[in-house]
Amino acid sequence: MSLADAAPERGFQNTEFEARTARAQRLMARDGLAGLLLMSEQDVRYFTGFHTLFWQSPTRPWFVFVPASGKPVAVIPEIGAELMRRSWIDDIRTWSAPAPEDDGISLLTELLAPLAKVGARVGVMKGHETKLQMPLGDWERLVARLGGIKFADVTKLVQGLRMVKSPAEIKKLSHICAIGSAAFSKVPDLVGEGMPLEEVFRQFRLAAIGSGADDAPYVVGAADQGGYADVISPPSRRPLQKGDVLMLDTGCTWDGYFCDFDRNWAIGDVHDDAKRAYDVLWRATQAGIDAARPGNTCRDLFLAMSKVIAEMDSSGGDIGRLGHGLGMQLTEQPSHAAFDETELKENMVLTLEPSLSYGEGLMMVHEENIVVSNGEAKLLTTRAAPELILVR
Amino acid sequence: MSLADAAPERGFQNTEFEARTARAQRLMARDGLAGLLLMSEQDVRYFTGFHTLFWQSPTRPWFVFVPASGKPVAVIPEIGAELMRRSWIDDIRTWSAPAPEDDGISLLTELLAPLAKVGARVGVMKGHETKLQMPLGDWERLVARLGGIKFADVTKLVQGLRMVKSPAEIKKLSHICAIGSAAFSKVPDLVGEGMPLEEVFRQFRLAAIGSGADDAPYVVGAADQGGYADVISPPSRRPLQKGDVLMLDTGCTWDGYFCDFDRNWAIGDVHDDAKRAYDVLWRATQAGIDAARPGNTCRDLFLAMSKVIAEMDSSGGDIGRLGHGLGMQLTEQPSHAAFDETELKENMVLTLEPSLSYGEGLMMVHEENIVVSNGEAKLLTTRAAPELILVR
Repeated sequence: MSLADAAPERGFQNTEFEARTARAQRLMARDGLAGLLLMSEQDVRYFTGFHTLFWQSPTRPWFVFVPASGKPVAVIPEIGAELMRRSWIDDIRTWSAPAPEDDGISLLTELLAPLAKVGARVGVMKGHETKLQMPLGDWERLVARLGGIKFADVTKLVQGLRMVKSPAEIKKLSHICAIGSAAFSKVPDLVGEGMPLEEVFRQFRLAAIGSGADDAPYVVGAADQGGYADVISPPSRRPLQKGDVLMLDTGCTWDGYFCDFDRNWAIGDVHDDAKRAYDVLWRATQAGIDAARPGNTCRDLFLAMSKVIAEMDSSGGDIGRLGHGLGMQLTEQPSHAAFDETELKENMVLTLEPSLSYGEGLMMVHEENIVVSNGEAKLLTTRAAPELILVR
Repeated sequence: MSLADAAPERGFQNTEFEARTARAQRLMARDGLAGLLLMSEQDVRYFTGFHTLFWQSPTRPWFVFVPASGKPVAVIPEIGAELMRRSWIDDIRTWSAPAPEDDGISLLTELLAPLAKVGARVGVMKGHETKLQMPLGDWERLVARLGGIKFADVTKLVQGLRMVKSPAEIKKLSHICAIGSAAFSKVPDLVGEGMPLEEVFRQFRLAAIGSGADDAPYVVGAADQGGYADVISPPSRRPLQKGDVLMLDTGCTWDGYFCDFDRNWAIGDVHDDAKRAYDVLWRATQAGIDAARPGNTCRDLFLAMSKVIAEMDSSGGDIGRLGHGLGMQLTEQPSHAAFDETELKENMVLTLEPSLSYGEGLMMVHEENIVVSNGEAKLLTTRAAPELILVR
């Protein structure tokens, strides 16, 4: 059976959105919130199912209001009305956007004015890993018009919901991780000594999409003698050379869900330091998998991986963490870092991403995707080989 | 010569960034601004050349400060230091991110404190088509700490600079438009009756990347009997049927620059209404090309296209405008709309995107990419055929 045949259904049943909204409303009641005003692609999609690549255009803002009870209300540009009408929500208010003088502000004011009158608390995303997804000037005007509302930060509430995935979400994540694994397994046959890195990236993207990914929006990597110095660059045109370590890191998507992992290869043979770094990171990942149990924290995961990494590097590195959440975004909360005491729960989907520095300014990264389960964590990716794979 | 062989150099000479910064600083002097605090991927890249897909991770904020004189200063996560050091700027200040308690705020405070002391004006992006590219809570803390600074909206200043492209930028845009045109020309050979729309999208993406695009991050479209009702949806699994109008709209990228255009095809034969809509839109586009001359405004472009569209539809449609600027973003300022009096200047790169509604809730779109020149505008895309192309 090919991966395309194994694809789950696209989209979700309405019960998924009912359950998400009910969970949010229970927490809103706990926190005395009269509603959530959400604006990011992922937060809007989480509560409505509205799914489009059109968010890549920065022109128009989009708003969803989750009330204390009942279905969410959409306040969106007219161009999205047809697609939003296919969702489970009923109350869809639109304007002809773009309209720089009034891009949804009057509609939002009308919707929220009754809450302003009674001095209600309304949640918005103000915290870590969020951005204000509307023009700052419009936000300032809206706050001034709705003077009675107390805007509260609900970053932890919303991120807490999104961190724990539903069975339907895990199916999508599992599918895209299998596609990513299939694409990586083809790399030794697709690339080799003499191929410019730019072409390596192109061949990988074609393999990922050909293997069933909707897209491979995130492809970064590097290749250089005995290792690489940077993990976020676009490709150079330098041809692969014997003695290079090649690394590719990808976020591929299927139905709006990401995988995020990387692989390393040796072009011909490489220096022993690289082989040792690979072995340390492989075992650090294993320590992470072993520690990824409900009740442990992200800090525990970080410490378990750090302990192995310290065999070769105790600097702490420059990436700032050793993995993160995964879902509708390439990187989501939580962070595997000393500062993050988030407790692991069943059905959290995480990356384990140990990295280390070695030699003269070289670094190596290694990454797998897992789902936290009752007992041992389950790998969603096909585990990397325990030794660097040689590419001829 | 293949398109890959015709590719321009990646990146820019340092003189490009010197010129951009000098132009900004002349306008800053005019407006009494002591600096610009910028945070978006495109604004940071415009002034530094810092180019990475890593922005897809929402975890870490990135800042560039353009002072009244001298080179920009970067305040960025340590993970980006190596890549930023390859740019033309010298002053790079980093912190180990993510650090939820202090994600760059102390570094920004230190950098800007001398300006706060003297009550200086500092520009930020607050206007139409912008977002606050850092957590709102952090922004509020920063403003409180730097009480002396008067933050001014510089949306028009920065967008005005970015609207007019340099010769090097136009080479990149021309290259990706040629790649997009090559990919569209292959569609009649790649798709046909019976192919699910999801597979049509996949085949198009593979063709675009195979033709030399770095990626095809934006692929939307639709297909249905005699026309389509929506232009921003992800693909269904419905197979193409005789009588369908198929539309694909794409933003492909090369070296961080976008094309953005679409094409329509008839599967077998289609209803005469669709043929008529196509003809009207083709001529509306031509009217747009003819009107795209220095000195005319975006409003003029809008009116020229609207006049032709009105032969079949005078509703104004639900897209809100008939095209826009194009560059590092899929859609940029200006907007071809009645409200936008932006004067066209040589070397602006624009989309012309007339659309109309017809029949029972059907719509059609048509789009080309041009560069405004001294005299007649130059097409960057290969002009669509004057009649709907039949696909068997």
